[in-house]
Amino acid sequence: MAFSERVTRLKSSLIREILAAAQRPDMMSFAGGLPAEAMLPQSEWSDMPRSMGQYGMSEGEPQLREALAAQARALGIACEASQVMIVSGSQQTLDLAAKLYIDKGTEILLEGPTYLAALQIFQLFGADCLTVPLLAEGPDLDVLRQRLERHAPSFAYLIPTFQNPSAVRYSEEARDAVAALLDEFGVTLIEDEPYRDLTFDGGSAKPIVSRLKKASWIYTGTVSKTLMPGLRVGYLIATPDLFAHLLKLKQSADLHTNRVGQWQALRWIGSDHYQQHLMELRGFYRTRRDQFEAALQRHFSDLAQWNSPQGGLFFWLTLKEKIDTRTLLDTALAQNVAFMPGEPFFTDPDANPGYLRLNFSHIDPARLDEGLKRLAAVIRHAQAAHAA
Amino acid sequence: MAFSERVTRLKSSLIREILAAAQRPDMMSFAGGLPAEAMLPQSEWSDMPRSMGQYGMSEGEPQLREALAAQARALGIACEASQVMIVSGSQQTLDLAAKLYIDKGTEILLEGPTYLAALQIFQLFGADCLTVPLLAEGPDLDVLRQRLERHAPSFAYLIPTFQNPSAVRYSEEARDAVAALLDEFGVTLIEDEPYRDLTFDGGSAKPIVSRLKKASWIYTGTVSKTLMPGLRVGYLIATPDLFAHLLKLKQSADLHTNRVGQWQALRWIGSDHYQQHLMELRGFYRTRRDQFEAALQRHFSDLAQWNSPQGGLFFWLTLKEKIDTRTLLDTALAQNVAFMPGEPFFTDPDANPGYLRLNFSHIDPARLDEGLKRLAAVIRHAQAAHAA
Repeated sequence: MAFSERVTRLKSSLIREILAAAQRPDMMSFAGGLPAEAMLPQSEWSDMPRSMGQYGMSEGEPQLREALAAQARALGIACEASQVMIVSGSQQTLDLAAKLYIDKGTEILLEGPTYLAALQIFQLFGADCLTVPLLAEGPDLDVLRQRLERHAPSFAYLIPTFQNPSAVRYSEEARDAVAALLDEFGVTLIEDEPYRDLTFDGGSAKPIVSRLKKASWIYTGTVSKTLMPGLRVGYLIATPDLFAHLLKLKQSADLHTNRVGQWQALRWIGSDHYQQHLMELRGFYRTRRDQFEAALQRHFSDLAQWNSPQGGLFFWLTLKEKIDTRTLLDTALAQNVAFMPGEPFFTDPDANPGYLRLNFSHIDPARLDEGLKRLAAVIRHAQAAHAA
Repeated sequence: MAFSERVTRLKSSLIREILAAAQRPDMMSFAGGLPAEAMLPQSEWSDMPRSMGQYGMSEGEPQLREALAAQARALGIACEASQVMIVSGSQQTLDLAAKLYIDKGTEILLEGPTYLAALQIFQLFGADCLTVPLLAEGPDLDVLRQRLERHAPSFAYLIPTFQNPSAVRYSEEARDAVAALLDEFGVTLIEDEPYRDLTFDGGSAKPIVSRLKKASWIYTGTVSKTLMPGLRVGYLIATPDLFAHLLKLKQSADLHTNRVGQWQALRWIGSDHYQQHLMELRGFYRTRRDQFEAALQRHFSDLAQWNSPQGGLFFWLTLKEKIDTRTLLDTALAQNVAFMPGEPFFTDPDANPGYLRLNFSHIDPARLDEGLKRLAAVIRHAQAAHAA
């Protein structure tokens, strides 16, 4: 069987395997980044014109592109609708970027930790991943400068707002500094912002792409975290030097994004009822965050450290006593608890033991305490065995 | 700007560029492979459960996979639902296959001519394309044997039923012979069947994958030609040795296919009202085919030869006097006529001048005669200038 060379690097998505295992109805899952079922809006379809059944444009629906460009301009991103492309979920932005930039051995720059599924697709294409450690308010700027001085990465992939998995939100100063460095070294920025609208304290620092003066950029977002992931509607906005290439790559990947999902997204984006929905969503998740943290305090205060997330969907736990949390997964699943080990979010998992990513948006509050109690017991038991 | 090596091979899809140009309301277009607007079914959405808004499985909706497996078994393909994956239109099958098999210089085997957008994605990944000429009832079997004796292609990509662009349908004998050759040489088959259900004479030769005894295979289909392309719902069925790899590639490409489109597709696949719709569709397109052929007889009988298509959406014209039809495109568009030059369907367009692919499903019958008349005049004029 003669597969491509890249297939030797083809890894499964651990998160989707855990989610598959977590389908059992009695499972208490902290694993995914799923919206709460209760907050999936009731969708209306009766007005959808029959023409949405026909083939569409590779760029996406013109009105939706206009609405997203307006939304981006309101965030300070200078752009036109002609720079907006609708993609099949923002994961597809990463696939298109991988095709555009990555050959075997191409250097790229990532946060450590970074989004698992970005690592998966970038490494599949053969990227050589440079990482910059994330601190509480953004990347370690000294390391970032050092990396840029010694390497010429094809792009930097950053998630500056409620990062997945760490929940870190870059400060204003960090955003400015990162933009200045990327401009100085002429490195393209891919800025991934699925969580921007899920803010609990009202913070709204402008995207880094809006602070760039010279460097090329791709900004990507999605309706998956605020409306309905099942629509598979995301978008990218890119500088004109990149857009034409990305469009051809989109054509060859799947012709265009599904139009029914685009039509539904357009019923929301830019509307008052979307703003209303976002307000409700923030309140709902803020409450879940608080409930989760209270339960964490009860069961994990001696085991781990964490910062309270000001947005997004995750707590990121650092175990006080390091242990590879991947080794805990089977035991936890056997006790009907699913969680996401933190190690796979690093380019070198073995060198970074002792982190857990816990989702707080999806768990039934009635089972939250029991789930965290069981998970803490699994950790305690493993650490005791380890110490023995 | 450091792009990947593959970007040097990144071509635009000519067909999508023509379609973009053909958006003008006064355009008479023979270019695309679009369903007739009148035959897009009225879709009902009121029963869709809100849970379809949530993330779904990378494999696709379980019930839809079951329904498609049952449909495939009825065609003679031995398969289980576990071998079925829902993809974002069957174009995505080609993207996943390219990732699975193609490095720079990987040999693959294609029909000559073959589907334009397959060439686009396979060549983007660096494939070295071997071709087998298509005859009236299938590929030239002597050339096919010769290619297989002298090369070891990673796969053969074939469209045996109402091929795009040529409308060729492989005979029973050709299907058996191709299956036997692929088994003999152990070459994987990718069989692409978007047009199977659009048969005008009731023919229903079993797929080639159902005739294989040893070789691995991927079979791919779509609801785009029979229901609504705007849903972007296609599927692949693969032998188990390939499926796990394809699933990981699907995960990393876009997590999963949109669920609202899958839900709508499931309302049709395997149902009596889908069979009723297919019967109406065949009748409607058969009539359009007949009207088109009558107009072709009036305007093209001295200019070109063709076989009457027994299914699918296209007439494939061979000009009696060879001329590169790509050079006619601007003139035709200026006269509000869009068509698809035949040359780009060959791996070596320059060596294959003098073909046109004309779509008969989408043109308004009231404008059909005028459109073909103008197109014939453009050709006559160019040939006269060429001869002068």
